[in-house]
Amino acid sequence: MEQRISLVTLGVADVRRARRFYEALGWRSDAEPDSDIVFFQAGGIVVALWSRAELASDSGVRDGGGWGGVTLAHNVRSRAEVDAVLSQARIAGATIARPAAETFWGGYSGALIDPDGHPWEIAHNPHWTIGGDGSISL
Amino acid sequence: MEQRISLVTLGVADVRRARRFYEALGWRSDAEPDSDIVFFQAGGIVVALWSRAELASDSGVRDGGGWGGVTLAHNVRSRAEVDAVLSQARIAGATIARPAAETFWGGYSGALIDPDGHPWEIAHNPHWTIGGDGSISL
Repeated sequence: MEQRISLVTLGVADVRRARRFYEALGWRSDAEPDSDIVFFQAGGIVVALWSRAELASDSGVRDGGGWGGVTLAHNVRSRAEVDAVLSQARIAGATIARPAAETFWGGYSGALIDPDGHPWEIAHNPHWTIGGDGSISL
Repeated sequence: MEQRISLVTLGVADVRRARRFYEALGWRSDAEPDSDIVFFQAGGIVVALWSRAELASDSGVRDGGGWGGVTLAHNVRSRAEVDAVLSQARIAGATIARPAAETFWGGYSGALIDPDGHPWEIAHNPHWTIGGDGSISL
């Protein structure tokens, strides 16, 4: 198995509502407006929004109904950018679960929760390099 | 907010056990053997293994205890490769939640569940392009 992910699918209650949230953050998809699955090209991977019930069935799992042990992170190039993304997300309807602050690992981050309960850490990590295309190198 | 993910963190019960599973699939990390967080360079993003309790706390969420609406996918270049990855994962200790079969969207896929309950779809999607570096283009 090659060392990579192709797709991260977020199960959501209402695909149109979820799409509006990510579009309010500036993301764009070519999916039709009434599409029941929305794919976003996210660098070299794809992020999908799909019915959480359908995703559970397709994944062969029972839905625990809450958070299930997966957190996404979006790394940015400065502390100011962490603040800006969190502010933009709050206006778009996210809950700020952890306000931006210095972290124990020497960076600066905060956490937001999207309208479907999916958390994102927004982080500036001075130890990691972000390429011009947004890719991360350890 | 740029349209990308930097890091996907999987919360796990035992980082060493989880690491052994992904290493049995062929993944490699530079983390120390007893590290309590393991980072894998996965194309242009990073996949991390970390204590699920710590991740919940860090993400500002309550742990639902089961699956939480996120499924990862790993796309490959042929149907035979889908079968090979699922077989390798089963031997490494995964549960096969959905055996490989043709899908309603015209591809071929199956689903595995890692030892911590995180599902992965292993898929061949003839409509998507996989680059030489493993990146996916819609």
